[in-house]
Amino acid sequence: MKALLLIAHGSRRTQSNDEVVVIAEKLKQRCDDQYDIVHSGFLELADTLIADGIKKCVDDGATEITVLPYFLNSGRHVTEDIPHDVNKTKAHYPEVKITIAPHLGSSDLMMDLLMTCASKA
Amino acid sequence: MKALLLIAHGSRRTQSNDEVVVIAEKLKQRCDDQYDIVHSGFLELADTLIADGIKKCVDDGATEITVLPYFLNSGRHVTEDIPHDVNKTKAHYPEVKITIAPHLGSSDLMMDLLMTCASKA
Repeated sequence: MKALLLIAHGSRRTQSNDEVVVIAEKLKQRCDDQYDIVHSGFLELADTLIADGIKKCVDDGATEITVLPYFLNSGRHVTEDIPHDVNKTKAHYPEVKITIAPHLGSSDLMMDLLMTCASKA
Repeated sequence: MKALLLIAHGSRRTQSNDEVVVIAEKLKQRCDDQYDIVHSGFLELADTLIADGIKKCVDDGATEITVLPYFLNSGRHVTEDIPHDVNKTKAHYPEVKITIAPHLGSSDLMMDLLMTCASKA
């Protein structure tokens, strides 16, 4: 059972966190042929932290989890904080394969996304 | 003369700001049939702020500027801070048309981008 766990920074502003949950729901509809389970979680400032998100995936039966950082740049959060929290949680689920995907800004598709948004100004 | 001004949050970490400059350069190569000028700037914590970025575009001859927020969520920075700084700067260039594009998370293409990154885990 494959799971996708979208991890955003988290905000004190509930609406921003809700947007991430909505994006995870859209993603679930979009990728149900590739991932059986999709959840979202946050690095900080929100109820569902990385450990909670991983637990949700495992509770749903995940044997493989792809952690997908919803971050634009390769700052400390992406290079250190997310790997730290993931590795710490991994120890509790030695039977589950957990990998971390690259941040969004590293993808060539970002250019298409930027051009699409620019055309909607 | 049309200009595209990519605006990121800005970071104390130089490398993060440099990534934005590189993305603006890639964007320039990608969209040179649609935009004559491409620059980047930052909301805070960097040398080139929004007013500086707009000035660069105008100095290069821009008559139309599309401000493109490099932000994932519609938080306060996108809904209030960027419009505030853009409107304040607009007053200095009444002959230039300046519009603000939607934030990245609002685009349907975000799903494609997320799926591409997930596949690279």
